[in-house]
Amino acid sequence: MAASISDMEKLQKRMLVLSLHLRSSELQAEPFLGTNTCMSSAESELVDEVLSTNEPGNALYKMVAGKHRSVYEPIFYFFRHHPELVNPVEMLKDDHRELTMRQLKAIVHDIGFKPLTLLTEDPAKYFALTEAVGHIDLSLGIKLGVQYSLWGGSVINLGTQKHRDKYFDKIQNLEYPGCFAMTELHHGSNVQGLQTTATFDRDTDEFVINTPNEGATKWWIGNAAVHGKFATVFARLILPSSSSGNADMGVHAFIVPLRSMQTHAPLPGVEIRDCGYKVGLNGVDNGALRFHNVRIPRDNLLNKFGDVSREGVYSSPLPTPNKRFAATLGELVGGRVGLAAGSVGVLKAAATIAIRYSLLRQQFGPPNKPETVILDYQSQQGRLIPMLASSYAFHFATEYLVDRYVEMKRTRDDEVIADVHALSAGLKSYVTAYTAKSLSICREACGGHGYAAVNRFGSLRNDHDIFQTFEGDNTVLLQQVAADLLKQFKKKFEGGALTVTWKYLRDSMGTYLSQTNPVVTHRDGEGHLRDPNFQLDAFRYRTARLLQTAALRLRKLTKQHGSFEAWNYCLNHLLTLAESHIETVILEKFIEAVHRCEDKTGKSHLKLLCDLYALDRIWNDIGTYRNQDYVAPNKAKAIHRLVEQLCHEVRLVATELVDAFKIPDYILRAPIGLKSKQYSEYSQIIGF
Amino acid sequence: MAASISDMEKLQKRMLVLSLHLRSSELQAEPFLGTNTCMSSAESELVDEVLSTNEPGNALYKMVAGKHRSVYEPIFYFFRHHPELVNPVEMLKDDHRELTMRQLKAIVHDIGFKPLTLLTEDPAKYFALTEAVGHIDLSLGIKLGVQYSLWGGSVINLGTQKHRDKYFDKIQNLEYPGCFAMTELHHGSNVQGLQTTATFDRDTDEFVINTPNEGATKWWIGNAAVHGKFATVFARLILPSSSSGNADMGVHAFIVPLRSMQTHAPLPGVEIRDCGYKVGLNGVDNGALRFHNVRIPRDNLLNKFGDVSREGVYSSPLPTPNKRFAATLGELVGGRVGLAAGSVGVLKAAATIAIRYSLLRQQFGPPNKPETVILDYQSQQGRLIPMLASSYAFHFATEYLVDRYVEMKRTRDDEVIADVHALSAGLKSYVTAYTAKSLSICREACGGHGYAAVNRFGSLRNDHDIFQTFEGDNTVLLQQVAADLLKQFKKKFEGGALTVTWKYLRDSMGTYLSQTNPVVTHRDGEGHLRDPNFQLDAFRYRTARLLQTAALRLRKLTKQHGSFEAWNYCLNHLLTLAESHIETVILEKFIEAVHRCEDKTGKSHLKLLCDLYALDRIWNDIGTYRNQDYVAPNKAKAIHRLVEQLCHEVRLVATELVDAFKIPDYILRAPIGLKSKQYSEYSQIIGF
Repeated sequence: MAASISDMEKLQKRMLVLSLHLRSSELQAEPFLGTNTCMSSAESELVDEVLSTNEPGNALYKMVAGKHRSVYEPIFYFFRHHPELVNPVEMLKDDHRELTMRQLKAIVHDIGFKPLTLLTEDPAKYFALTEAVGHIDLSLGIKLGVQYSLWGGSVINLGTQKHRDKYFDKIQNLEYPGCFAMTELHHGSNVQGLQTTATFDRDTDEFVINTPNEGATKWWIGNAAVHGKFATVFARLILPSSSSGNADMGVHAFIVPLRSMQTHAPLPGVEIRDCGYKVGLNGVDNGALRFHNVRIPRDNLLNKFGDVSREGVYSSPLPTPNKRFAATLGELVGGRVGLAAGSVGVLKAAATIAIRYSLLRQQFGPPNKPETVILDYQSQQGRLIPMLASSYAFHFATEYLVDRYVEMKRTRDDEVIADVHALSAGLKSYVTAYTAKSLSICREACGGHGYAAVNRFGSLRNDHDIFQTFEGDNTVLLQQVAADLLKQFKKKFEGGALTVTWKYLRDSMGTYLSQTNPVVTHRDGEGHLRDPNFQLDAFRYRTARLLQTAALRLRKLTKQHGSFEAWNYCLNHLLTLAESHIETVILEKFIEAVHRCEDKTGKSHLKLLCDLYALDRIWNDIGTYRNQDYVAPNKAKAIHRLVEQLCHEVRLVATELVDAFKIPDYILRAPIGLKSKQYSEYSQIIGF
Repeated sequence: MAASISDMEKLQKRMLVLSLHLRSSELQAEPFLGTNTCMSSAESELVDEVLSTNEPGNALYKMVAGKHRSVYEPIFYFFRHHPELVNPVEMLKDDHRELTMRQLKAIVHDIGFKPLTLLTEDPAKYFALTEAVGHIDLSLGIKLGVQYSLWGGSVINLGTQKHRDKYFDKIQNLEYPGCFAMTELHHGSNVQGLQTTATFDRDTDEFVINTPNEGATKWWIGNAAVHGKFATVFARLILPSSSSGNADMGVHAFIVPLRSMQTHAPLPGVEIRDCGYKVGLNGVDNGALRFHNVRIPRDNLLNKFGDVSREGVYSSPLPTPNKRFAATLGELVGGRVGLAAGSVGVLKAAATIAIRYSLLRQQFGPPNKPETVILDYQSQQGRLIPMLASSYAFHFATEYLVDRYVEMKRTRDDEVIADVHALSAGLKSYVTAYTAKSLSICREACGGHGYAAVNRFGSLRNDHDIFQTFEGDNTVLLQQVAADLLKQFKKKFEGGALTVTWKYLRDSMGTYLSQTNPVVTHRDGEGHLRDPNFQLDAFRYRTARLLQTAALRLRKLTKQHGSFEAWNYCLNHLLTLAESHIETVILEKFIEAVHRCEDKTGKSHLKLLCDLYALDRIWNDIGTYRNQDYVAPNKAKAIHRLVEQLCHEVRLVATELVDAFKIPDYILRAPIGLKSKQYSEYSQIIGF
């Protein structure tokens, strides 16, 4: 009665072929696949690679990359057939910038994606798009993010219908390339300290934009050095006051044209400089801007959270400057979601390359026997296997974040907004910091061959590096997470509601801050250590304890030194608290993912990875657990042994686990990271 | 009676001026300083920068960089006046390679250094030279190392007088640029697994060099892609045996001409390919080599440890292949010493840039007050201040290593040889790994401006990265340290002699492995924690304990699984042991340096740094200390608090501490790391 698996596969395969056709005709005038003849053979390879259920990792693939195949596949397919648009290993900044722009145009004009529509209507797909183009080149991912998340997103989210009408389509189709001019030479993290001014001139009904001093130079502005026509400029809104002097209404956002639509020359009063060569992301043209009495119409104020009338009277739906500022920045939270997801993509790619090479490379061995594959060395496992576990862990956590973001956009619920704000800050910081370290570890783990540019670790590390800084410096964002936790802590005692993500804290506080149970602290059997209840308990205990002690210390120190100094005295403590909380959320989401996996082998693989993630983190912070006697010495040793054992067990299925990420060889590109023939490909590349 | 300080200064200053003259006339035909007029003004600036005793950090300067002023100053001076030879921020690989060669020629021909003479007669000065040129560009440091330490060093140390006579001068003056062709595509760390062959042909009295398969391709050979005329090729020596078949005598070194002295074309049978663009060090031209029946005279065998007679009979002063192999590699230990010293130089430069910027940059602050300098944030101190302490710690440790190396070269004493071997392996690994991580931390700590290529963290990180891999992969070298410790452990029980560096182990074993004293484990006063005896005790206790448990585990596991598997089961344990030992040696040398500092302020600064180094390391591994109850919970907390307090205290003198490294602004080059006017310099660089 039921169709056989093979029949279903055939059907599914045919549907994918059709969907590729449909997608191409739906999204663009000309199909991106060229002639139909060309399509069918190439496509069948593609589809084979994706659908073959014989591969043991397929169940996992369906849980990870499979969800957004409709985004990934057309992009991978397009670049496979346009090698001239794939980045060469070495290129000068200027060439890189032009290539990136051509790639971005291809995404929009040739493949037919409508990124601004996705951003506003289907954010989950938009984030998948960012991750997918990041596999081509991270500069492309960031260029896309600058154009759509930042420039487009600021116009749409901070502006009103008049802005949408005027700009949406032209931003979408790249007729209006634009910038997001927030950061200044002297101010990055402290956005409230920005010094650029926008003074309302009642006589002409205009704002006059000025850079009052060197420190107010807009700096690091993506798209500014070469391609940008417009910028959303963040500036202090100055209103002529009735009394003498002007009123500073705080930071607002304004659309400022930068270059002539005809000649592309900078407009009068706009000084543009090239920020020059960077550590990475040299496909993005960052520039510096100074404004000298640049006049823009009053309509160019992005007026969702604050407006100025023809008479120069200020109005806002929000009561205080702080609330307006928070609402303005709150609209930009999508950028962080995208960075967290993109960073997980980088981690998957790097782990794939490093693990495949470590399964190929042999070095040393027992006397008179073949040399040993280096992934069989305990030290190599210790470097790479917890990283593999983390890449799965982070995948499920960022997937959850994306879901919450979509929910936030749908419901506009205050509680969800607060939750997404803290969660995106925390995950962005934690994941990007972890990936950055991992990229160095991968390079080292692959020795000399990891140092060849063609094997990608260098460019991935250099490009990804700044993920830790932009869209909110990690150290600053983690403090926001800590501040949010402290707010939740206060609420608990006041009996208020807790948002979903932090709910565990209430329970934890009651349970875990009492005496530890000496029987439990000594239990060291594998069954107990691999019990998700023990693992969650350990993570939550630590977070709850750090939270309670932080609150007490802060209360005491604030009395003595004031709140700013008190915060600074506790800063390391607060950062640890924030990380501990994020690790807890990640573990929760991982445990849920294990639970919902229906495939037996897939589930057992995920369970291995999840246990490794949990126990490795506990072991990394064993000092804290020992200090509280939450874990007795025998248990600490057992955890350490089990981490090494789990690394060994995961290593046995490592090939399947990286294959399940399904990053095709032609996209991964690193010869040492290919599925086969690595050495000969590597030799050929240098001309043998 | 005695000359006043001011008189002495004037005298000293005059002497430096003279010494610069003398040096230039002594070392070269034409003085490098151009006309005398030009000299006197420029020189006085230079001398001022170096000698002004008003600077509080001067006593420290004398203890660190001051020792090798005669090497540093001519180099810094030369490049200051030859900006056309200083690396631009962005350049293509091919241009970079040519610039590096021109820089190297300038060091030899214009400034007049004789690196091969220094390497053989005054190694301490040679290592200072490597560190100094590394401040110009790390590619230059490595190119110099390839030419002199590796190519020159292999000819001189593995060859005999006939080789010295023929090659010394032409290597020195760069007439014979050469390579060190050891690594193959399939074999890096496992040198005994190399597969290139050198078969003796009795008929022609030649060796025939062959690459028997793809995996035996020589890979990553510095100087090979563009400049090299010769290579020291490591190949299996094959002798026609009296019986059927040939005898494989193991890996030996041979001088093989690569390119025509006239046309520079590759010689017949020599295939050369370019390894291409790398993560860093693109000023060094790494190539791949294949040999097809390349014939070289018998004299080209570097025959210090093994020779072949006209009749094809093998002879050696050393009894076994293993001893010959060890002696061959042992001669190459100088490279590691150089890398350790060079890596400390990189750490000093990076710490200087990051700390100066963190003292300039302000962000956020208490309400209605000026913004706070970011080095005043506890989190920023936690990132950068222990790094500053480590750069001092590593300086004294590598200085000790250089002294031991010099002693080894002088005495040829077996015990010193073994000591230098393990110490260089350990320090090279530990220091380069620490510096690599620190470079990422510095970039992050400097936020967006840390991402501008001009601020140097990107190139420093990319160039330095491979220090962890070449001249012995860190993971492999640390295992050699662990193996050496285990040998010492065995000796202890057999009552043999212990080399100087490891002597503490014998005492530690007896004292520390008995019960810990509960009174001591609870002592948490600052006086006690800052007592070097407590600190040393803690470091030694940990090493001794790790050593004893490793020995016991290995003994047990070897019985069950054989020695190879047993070693692998304990691998993480053994790596931790090696690191713990190296940290102990570093602490000892730091404590000695504090002790011998005669200047009162200097001594108190060093003491602060030394305590911070010690306590920060203990805190980082607090889990181990708690697990053994070596440290009680109250003491653990006190250590943590004291680390934060010491960070704060060091921060107050941080300017003096980085100034004492005396890397001149024009050498450091990063605008954000200058002594003053950082922002305006930075603005000017991009064209404002």
